[in-house]
Amino acid sequence: MVTKKIALLPGDGIGPEVCRQAVKVLDAVAERFGHRFEFTSHLVGACAIDATGNPLPDETLAACRASDAVLFGAIGDPKYDNDPTAKVRPEQGLLKMRKELGLFANIRPVTAYKALLKHSPLKSDRIEGTDLVIFRELTGGIYFGGKGRMADGSAYDHCTYSRAEIERIAHLAFQSADSRRKHLTLVDKANVLETSRLWREVVQEIAPSYPEVAVDYLFVDNAAMQIIINPKQFDVMLTENMFGDIISDEASVIAGSMGLLPSASVGAEVAVFEPIHGSYPQAKGKGIANPLAAILSAAMLLDHLGLAEEAELVREAVDEALTNQILTPELNPTAPYTTEQVGSYVAFWI
Amino acid sequence: MVTKKIALLPGDGIGPEVCRQAVKVLDAVAERFGHRFEFTSHLVGACAIDATGNPLPDETLAACRASDAVLFGAIGDPKYDNDPTAKVRPEQGLLKMRKELGLFANIRPVTAYKALLKHSPLKSDRIEGTDLVIFRELTGGIYFGGKGRMADGSAYDHCTYSRAEIERIAHLAFQSADSRRKHLTLVDKANVLETSRLWREVVQEIAPSYPEVAVDYLFVDNAAMQIIINPKQFDVMLTENMFGDIISDEASVIAGSMGLLPSASVGAEVAVFEPIHGSYPQAKGKGIANPLAAILSAAMLLDHLGLAEEAELVREAVDEALTNQILTPELNPTAPYTTEQVGSYVAFWI
Ligand SMILES: CC(C)[C@H](C(=O)O)[C@@H](O)C(=O)O
Ligand SMILES: CC(C)[C@H](C(=O)O)[C@@H](O)C(=O)O
Repeated sequence: MVTKKIALLPGDGIGPEVCRQAVKVLDAVAERFGHRFEFTSHLVGACAIDATGNPLPDETLAACRASDAVLFGAIGDPKYDNDPTAKVRPEQGLLKMRKELGLFANIRPVTAYKALLKHSPLKSDRIEGTDLVIFRELTGGIYFGGKGRMADGSAYDHCTYSRAEIERIAHLAFQSADSRRKHLTLVDKANVLETSRLWREVVQEIAPSYPEVAVDYLFVDNAAMQIIINPKQFDVMLTENMFGDIISDEASVIAGSMGLLPSASVGAEVAVFEPIHGSYPQAKGKGIANPLAAILSAAMLLDHLGLAEEAELVREAVDEALTNQILTPELNPTAPYTTEQVGSYVAFWI
Repeated sequence: MVTKKIALLPGDGIGPEVCRQAVKVLDAVAERFGHRFEFTSHLVGACAIDATGNPLPDETLAACRASDAVLFGAIGDPKYDNDPTAKVRPEQGLLKMRKELGLFANIRPVTAYKALLKHSPLKSDRIEGTDLVIFRELTGGIYFGGKGRMADGSAYDHCTYSRAEIERIAHLAFQSADSRRKHLTLVDKANVLETSRLWREVVQEIAPSYPEVAVDYLFVDNAAMQIIINPKQFDVMLTENMFGDIISDEASVIAGSMGLLPSASVGAEVAVFEPIHGSYPQAKGKGIANPLAAILSAAMLLDHLGLAEEAELVREAVDEALTNQILTPELNPTAPYTTEQVGSYVAFWI
């Protein structure tokens, strides 16, 4: 019996509706185990800009810091995407949150669910059995370097990495590999980039501290192929921010739907749990958004709170939904269930 | 009846053996049509470092400039990859060649060959009919910006783009779209990067000059998914250097083998034709390297020389090899042919 404060940041688009289902499932967990989860809801993204002019209000940041864990929906609105000159953008809220809360490691497990093999664009024999996890650095690199315009109209973005930034996430990735199949793959572009060469150096230095973990190195262009050709070869993949953004979204095709993939963004202070899918504004309010990624993010949140048995139960309930095809239209086009129904079904199994 | 100077830069690993087959096919074309192709061979990459200390000797550069077209094999050697401190690397030869010859546009057509559908890790119905071409900017961005180490041990890479760099390749891509299915997709990360916002601005400015071409915009992480989920949605994809490197290698899985994909790198002065695969050092000298990408690169070279009928004939001869399964082991594991045999078979059909 524990009491925990969970800050909810539903965000934009389908964020609020999928978060609602995750809360429903967490409420069911609380009831079953006699825990108390105290939820408070806060603005982030386009809805925060609309309400306050700021994509990440101070109040939201304070609430995250005061919480035991954060559950995040999604942010983004097309009205900002096609205006390259917009000064305030929803994404700034997300990036600022990562930076301010020091969420340096984004952890994305990718599993090929048996019930969903037929939905993947990949042939089943290539993906069945895939079980990998991507460690993406989240507060450094080209995302957070200097950027701007020069007098002649050209634009720049600077990518920088310090040894310390690489070391802390590398240790997390090595520890994960050590507890899994003991294989770590660094994805970089060391044949071109100086920052990648530093990543290789630091990983080579750290490797001897994890003598049981086999390390190999893959250029990002090759990794983008290998992850499709033979995803089963990977256990833990470690990479920098921009490459991680690309590779992890790409890897989602293995699961047959982005709507299945959770993530954790961890730092020294607090951790944020969020589906890897975006705000999918076209689907907003239609009841077609898949809540399972948000629900599986809630399972990762439970793990983070030390509630492993509860987390496992949530995953088993999700498996029930998959096995019994209680799924939103992208995974069950012939007899689809709504966002709400899928959430309730999972909660029912808790 | 024409006379043309072709500079051969076979490079490392399997580069020389696949180039040899392309030359064989070009010789057959010359004989059949009464042309004269004058080949000269020059060093580049690891073999150039070994022989001269320089991955791109001046002599090689001069020969490229004096030629009507360049046929390139591949460069790279593992002995350089795992030494992040190596001062001279084969890749520098390739990058310097691109920069010195002003090869600003890398053009990579991706086709799903019917005979190879079964080799793709992707389900056939997803890819059958794919016909897209990627325009990758090749002499700008993070590949060529300032890079180095700082006093505190951190590393940096700078990405810059000028309007002119974006405009010239954007015009090429729009022209290509105009002559094809009239659809251009810009792949960028405009929600994070300033350089990407400049790409969007410039493309939006240019678009009205091509009123028949429909333009849309895709974030690179989403593009990495879409190209696997539904490659048929794309016609011409335009992107910057680093994203193009990743996306185009990824797209090669559609063809079922990297060994099928040619590319052209064009500039104001001269154009270079090369398979998109690397030097694959493990396969060197074993007769298992697929020469078709090099041969199809030679077909692109013929197009560039204004020899469209000859180019078409080469493509038809390659189709014969595909249809009749005269293929190297990765595509025909049960009754494989050697690199040499595949080349001779294609040449035979000319
Ligand atoms: C919305 C965007 C800024 C973000 C990113 O690029 O990090 C998203 O794609 C993600 O992966 O969380
Ligand atoms: C070898 C390497 C420097 C090169 C690149 O990244 O451009 C290669 O991957 C390519 O795509 O031609």
